[in-house]
Amino acid sequence: MATFSKIVECVPNFSEGRDKEKIEKIVNPFRCKDGVKLLNYSNDEDHNRLVVTIVGEPQPVKEALLEAIGVAVEVIDLNHHQGAHKRMGAVDVVPFIPIKNMEIEEAIELSKEVGKAIADTYKIPVFLYEKSASAPHRENLAKIRKGEFEGMAEKIHEPEWHPDFGPEERHPTAGTVAVGARAPLCAYNVNLNTPDVAIADAIAKKVRHIGGGLRFCKAMGLELTDRHITQVSMNLTDYTKTAIYRAHELIRVEAKRYGVSIVGSEVIGLVPTRALIECAEYYLGIENFSMDQLLEPMIENAIHE
Amino acid sequence: MATFSKIVECVPNFSEGRDKEKIEKIVNPFRCKDGVKLLNYSNDEDHNRLVVTIVGEPQPVKEALLEAIGVAVEVIDLNHHQGAHKRMGAVDVVPFIPIKNMEIEEAIELSKEVGKAIADTYKIPVFLYEKSASAPHRENLAKIRKGEFEGMAEKIHEPEWHPDFGPEERHPTAGTVAVGARAPLCAYNVNLNTPDVAIADAIAKKVRHIGGGLRFCKAMGLELTDRHITQVSMNLTDYTKTAIYRAHELIRVEAKRYGVSIVGSEVIGLVPTRALIECAEYYLGIENFSMDQLLEPMIENAIHE
Repeated sequence: MATFSKIVECVPNFSEGRDKEKIEKIVNPFRCKDGVKLLNYSNDEDHNRLVVTIVGEPQPVKEALLEAIGVAVEVIDLNHHQGAHKRMGAVDVVPFIPIKNMEIEEAIELSKEVGKAIADTYKIPVFLYEKSASAPHRENLAKIRKGEFEGMAEKIHEPEWHPDFGPEERHPTAGTVAVGARAPLCAYNVNLNTPDVAIADAIAKKVRHIGGGLRFCKAMGLELTDRHITQVSMNLTDYTKTAIYRAHELIRVEAKRYGVSIVGSEVIGLVPTRALIECAEYYLGIENFSMDQLLEPMIENAIHE
Repeated sequence: MATFSKIVECVPNFSEGRDKEKIEKIVNPFRCKDGVKLLNYSNDEDHNRLVVTIVGEPQPVKEALLEAIGVAVEVIDLNHHQGAHKRMGAVDVVPFIPIKNMEIEEAIELSKEVGKAIADTYKIPVFLYEKSASAPHRENLAKIRKGEFEGMAEKIHEPEWHPDFGPEERHPTAGTVAVGARAPLCAYNVNLNTPDVAIADAIAKKVRHIGGGLRFCKAMGLELTDRHITQVSMNLTDYTKTAIYRAHELIRVEAKRYGVSIVGSEVIGLVPTRALIECAEYYLGIENFSMDQLLEPMIENAIHE
């Protein structure tokens, strides 16, 4: 009984959220494939967009993805696409997230390999973004996508917006695509014993990257009205660099200025195991801990080896 | 691709550590069985003892175990057994440890079921021990086993040593067996910035159960001579009741009396994921965290469902 020795997550976004038949055709290549598991897909009619979540071994994921993109190029024509969500391509964006036995570097390599294959196979211009970006101004997807499908006809000729792979012409029906690797997100909130949201917001502005704070931290202040307290609500976009405990302790430091204390915290949704284990390591001062010392994954691996 | 929905670990100890042929016969029932995985077996010639580690689904583990015990009863005669390790039966002790999707209560139930089946099938008297014990004086294996195979002929007739299952007579060749459930062990050590082992030892004596300390904590003081520091070395025998962070903080409290500080810690060998996640929860003050929020196990389960 073999399992996946490496797991990468991929969340391709397709610009078709209305036609059920086309949606099923696009999703189909992710079904019944060795080494690939379709976790979820959901379409939004207002956004006119389809978000697919798959996990699996890098190579089978790449192959299934290329097949699905082939279908999307065939059935989607951006010239006739309208929706509330910004878009620049039939396949709009393809993020890769390393999950198991994979560092971010390997996900970056995979994204480049896939980007090149998309360009070679379908003649679609590809922009590498996030961790895979070839320049700082290309890290942010919103900046790449600005102008959308329509604007990209001209934008792609500007020197700073040449694609990383493929022709320097927008594909006539499929537009352009962004491909890149990113770390799994940690949504982590810290509660403060003050009802004054101005304080929570002032703290948020100091700990977040844009305000001079932590590199991979987005933050804002929120009121928890029913509890008469406030919260610094955060997205940690790379917990391997900006650890949960570091954001937590920095909030404590900043809160001190206002005589405010931390009264609790919450993890929203899924969190990488290592992100919390690293907090235990920090607070307990554990020396030389390895993730291979975790009992259950070790036993699961032995069972499936 | 199905995986084990529940995992129990079982570490039966057999009183045969020398005859390779017999050892292989005893281990054989754990091979090539659906729902059972033989992780390891090692024999010690001085101890004249065989320790087998298996994991799997509760029922297949039970069945394979009964088969192996049948073989052991056949090939081992305690009347002719000598070795450095104390022993009271051909199958000396059978501990069950819950690993995945299983609380200790379910492991206790399983141990009782297996104990009854051993008694019914092989007419061997069974003592429930550890968490499965029917009385406090029967929790400790050493106390049950005192007198060993030879002494058990008389001891079993004493009112406080009647077996939990099976005949009130020692089996003529297979003796008696202890069966029980226990939590996975956490071996956790805390380093102190004093070279004086008397201080480490005094702290160890206060935090451990026997000295009035934490219920599931065994501890002793050690010197780390190369680093000129000392250590409180602990076994936490039930981390679900005596958490790692509680032992850690209690050591900090006791160390204060001597003006001594904690300078680090270490986890030895394998540790249940939850034992460290609970430390992150404590130090970060995370509210309402569930182990289902851990990304990798969730994805592994989705892959294997």
